[in-house]
Amino acid sequence: MRGKFVTVEGCEGSGKSTQLKLLAEYLTSIGADFIMTREPGGSDISEDIRKIILNGKYREMCDECEALLYAAARVQHLKEVVEPALNCGKLVICDRFVDSSFAYQGYARGLGEEYIAAINNVALEKYSPDLTLFLDISPTEAFNRKHGADEGDRIESMGIEFHEKVYAGYRSLLTKYPRICAVQCDGSKFETAENIRRILKERNII
Amino acid sequence: MRGKFVTVEGCEGSGKSTQLKLLAEYLTSIGADFIMTREPGGSDISEDIRKIILNGKYREMCDECEALLYAAARVQHLKEVVEPALNCGKLVICDRFVDSSFAYQGYARGLGEEYIAAINNVALEKYSPDLTLFLDISPTEAFNRKHGADEGDRIESMGIEFHEKVYAGYRSLLTKYPRICAVQCDGSKFETAENIRRILKERNII
Repeated sequence: MRGKFVTVEGCEGSGKSTQLKLLAEYLTSIGADFIMTREPGGSDISEDIRKIILNGKYREMCDECEALLYAAARVQHLKEVVEPALNCGKLVICDRFVDSSFAYQGYARGLGEEYIAAINNVALEKYSPDLTLFLDISPTEAFNRKHGADEGDRIESMGIEFHEKVYAGYRSLLTKYPRICAVQCDGSKFETAENIRRILKERNII
Repeated sequence: MRGKFVTVEGCEGSGKSTQLKLLAEYLTSIGADFIMTREPGGSDISEDIRKIILNGKYREMCDECEALLYAAARVQHLKEVVEPALNCGKLVICDRFVDSSFAYQGYARGLGEEYIAAINNVALEKYSPDLTLFLDISPTEAFNRKHGADEGDRIESMGIEFHEKVYAGYRSLLTKYPRICAVQCDGSKFETAENIRRILKERNII
């Protein structure tokens, strides 16, 4: 039986890394057969592409190049890592997927949804996630919680207006795709982790 | 006045590099205001992408990833190198362009023309070449002339059947796009160079 495919989305500072770590610990504790992977990256080729995308030196990178590099890393990661794991019946948890491209490049960069859909058609047609968890916290709120931002990579170091546009993009996707589920993030990290576990159970993922 | 955009296409072993060198010498000798550039590559970001595409280790690269990486390198090179030169009124000679993706990834890899057109829509809509020179020699003939193939990179080292498919792809494009002009390559390299110069004059490029 084919495994389930769950993707996790959110803005910078949404606590995604922390939540993925807590989720991995929980899945291990219940003996779930799962892999946790990330985009862009997750395979040698995709990690090499990731380095180019996030290289802080590359200020001159045009929006379309960025979007195409994400799409390239994505399709390689799907075929090399995600597909084989799903075929073995494993649960695949992926840190970011095509919704990141819709929110960051489609909405915030302004390339539009149609362009992102066209260059990601393999991902959209053959690998639609069973569930997408969206950590629903605005970048401004996340920034205030953290008491200031890190220097970060080429994407992280964009200004707050950019990240607010990304957030608006995610909110718009949320109303459009029933597979995307908003996770309340206004409590402690342990409460958020509990929210995630509850959604995974409700949707029969675990 | 916007400069002219000329692209040069051909299979492995077609003598493209030699012809581009002879053409550059000629253009310099007549005092033409031109730049010569290449795909994939021609800018820092695109050269970095080129290294991934041609990396001989990456046998596991899927066809879509390859096509998307070419499209990413292309759009960056267009915006960073080709567009500014054209805007300065320069003649731009580019070693390979979107027809390479049609022939190699669309035809020979089997991804189809529609997919290649979708991921290269910026290049196709905004940067259609004024002229495309196709060095019309089959890989088998080129191979026989050279008395054997080199080891080469990830693309060059594909077998002869693959390269014959690429050639068939180019022949098919030739019947479809009037901007593509076949260059007879059955004489010496100097005769081929003369053929190229004649076409450039006939098409009012120089």
